[in-house]
Amino acid sequence: MSTKHIGKQTAQLASPPTITETFSVVGSKEGNGPLRTYFDEIVEDNTFGEDSWEKAESKFMSTAIQKVVQKASLSTSDIQYLLAGDLLNQCSSAHYAVRDTNIPFMGIYGACSTMAEGLGLAGLLVDGGFADHAVATTSSHFCSAEKQFRFPLEYGGQRTPTAQWTVTGSGAAVVSALGDGPYITHVTTGKVVDMGISDVNNMGAAMAPAAADTIAAHFQDTGFGPSDYDLIVTGDLGMVGRQLNIDLLSQQGYEVSDVIDDCGCMIYDFETEDVHAGASGCGCSASVFCSKLIEELRSGAIKRLLFVATGALMSTTALKQGETIPCVAHAVRIVTDKAN
Amino acid sequence: MSTKHIGKQTAQLASPPTITETFSVVGSKEGNGPLRTYFDEIVEDNTFGEDSWEKAESKFMSTAIQKVVQKASLSTSDIQYLLAGDLLNQCSSAHYAVRDTNIPFMGIYGACSTMAEGLGLAGLLVDGGFADHAVATTSSHFCSAEKQFRFPLEYGGQRTPTAQWTVTGSGAAVVSALGDGPYITHVTTGKVVDMGISDVNNMGAAMAPAAADTIAAHFQDTGFGPSDYDLIVTGDLGMVGRQLNIDLLSQQGYEVSDVIDDCGCMIYDFETEDVHAGASGCGCSASVFCSKLIEELRSGAIKRLLFVATGALMSTTALKQGETIPCVAHAVRIVTDKAN
Repeated sequence: MSTKHIGKQTAQLASPPTITETFSVVGSKEGNGPLRTYFDEIVEDNTFGEDSWEKAESKFMSTAIQKVVQKASLSTSDIQYLLAGDLLNQCSSAHYAVRDTNIPFMGIYGACSTMAEGLGLAGLLVDGGFADHAVATTSSHFCSAEKQFRFPLEYGGQRTPTAQWTVTGSGAAVVSALGDGPYITHVTTGKVVDMGISDVNNMGAAMAPAAADTIAAHFQDTGFGPSDYDLIVTGDLGMVGRQLNIDLLSQQGYEVSDVIDDCGCMIYDFETEDVHAGASGCGCSASVFCSKLIEELRSGAIKRLLFVATGALMSTTALKQGETIPCVAHAVRIVTDKAN
Repeated sequence: MSTKHIGKQTAQLASPPTITETFSVVGSKEGNGPLRTYFDEIVEDNTFGEDSWEKAESKFMSTAIQKVVQKASLSTSDIQYLLAGDLLNQCSSAHYAVRDTNIPFMGIYGACSTMAEGLGLAGLLVDGGFADHAVATTSSHFCSAEKQFRFPLEYGGQRTPTAQWTVTGSGAAVVSALGDGPYITHVTTGKVVDMGISDVNNMGAAMAPAAADTIAAHFQDTGFGPSDYDLIVTGDLGMVGRQLNIDLLSQQGYEVSDVIDDCGCMIYDFETEDVHAGASGCGCSASVFCSKLIEELRSGAIKRLLFVATGALMSTTALKQGETIPCVAHAVRIVTDKAN
């Protein structure tokens, strides 16, 4: 019988796995932002030497996979599971990135929630005794995402104030059975939430209810509250969704404004970069987690983190058929001291 | 440390979970085929009362989820994980199908390998102690798949001899910690294999090397061989890929022709239905597994099954950019007696 499931949506890990190593690689715009000193690699040429945006995105991910394994002093044969997905149709960035790795592969799709889904699943597979090491990764690229979801870049359309800028970049993390932390102690798996938003230029508003739903479920399942965290960080709600999430949680009695932030509000400089409501894309939470957040966990600046990546499971075909945008958020609790 | 990983790609489950219940729902063409008496539900109207093929496909999946939970005498609140994905861009069939279920959701993408990925992952999550019950499901629809991957239906293009017919239907399975079998004992996770095929009308040839790679890895990791199985069933290689898989395994010293079959060669009547090389689509292996195969496991006609769903991770964008088709296959060992 289930021994590690608490409440409705949360797994409590018996032997909390360690996030052994991470690698972040981003494009030039991200490299000019406030997190520039935290990234492992900044690529000035956003085509990464490739002849299409899709191939460039895939190279960001393959770089992150290859280099995180090296950085962890492992070889690919030490990794039992590679969990990867992205925003492109049929997750093609991931498939071309993992093709030459020779690592057993499980494809995941959670739109911009992918990094939390992968990190959580890696934690479960390691804690379940199925792996010594698992890698979670995702990527996004501004140009491939605009082309697929909105307008051709050449069209030069005006962006609305609620629009968000898709991050060009990738992050990858190695999750291991042994290690000295930071540790994954709990994984709260989200439900699909759809509050009726259908505006592809307002993803933050679409995703905020899913974020609030998962964070509230995490509190209810575990007994933790806002004061048990140094930081609760959402994936890419941006300025609009960030505030909505705070308001929605407040309505449920959880005051999180002192401890909350959003990766989509952290990666760009709002003064100098024309990003409207902030950043988005799978690569946003992945690259912020694998740079600033992991460094602050290692330095002790953050001791208890709830990482809540949020995904708008948006299909342009479904939207054209009058559908609204289903969303999901997954939460992973990461701490520096297992006893906390 | 990893205690349940054997060889390079295989998890050996410590407390083999039971496949408690399954549900299959298919369209009219499938309902006219040789498996007609095995399906739980046959829907004569392939629009399923909806106004788009995509919404129809989603309804096949939501029907399978809802009815498998009922059939297992459970309620949705008893299910800790719902693992679902499909072929549509952004897996939209799955997202709209699960939206109203209120079950914690992990999105997976493995193209036509999705049913084995989901069933395997459900087995791992249950065996890992994270769930009492998990549901794995997938779907496909001939019309939504043709429209997205090949030509508009109205175009009426000629189909090549190697083309396969996408199954309209869905299958869902409940995997539980307690039960009397059939049991999931081993899960072999595939690597992405790409042998350079780029013909979207010859998926069987593209996928066969991935199937052979995973089956050979399963044999090497576990010590089992062809004679340890009553049936090794691939997902949707069709007539072309089925033979290629037999040949590729023979080259590696594994003679499987006596014990192998392919769901893509089982669901349609080749004499009366114009399906060329056979069936394909996520719904193919899902609906065949959740009907004939599970019934034969229950009756004892099959005692030891290796279920190997195969996915062509094909992106039309990548193919237009000169790429070939990466493929993956996952294998799940299912037995009626845990001691075997």
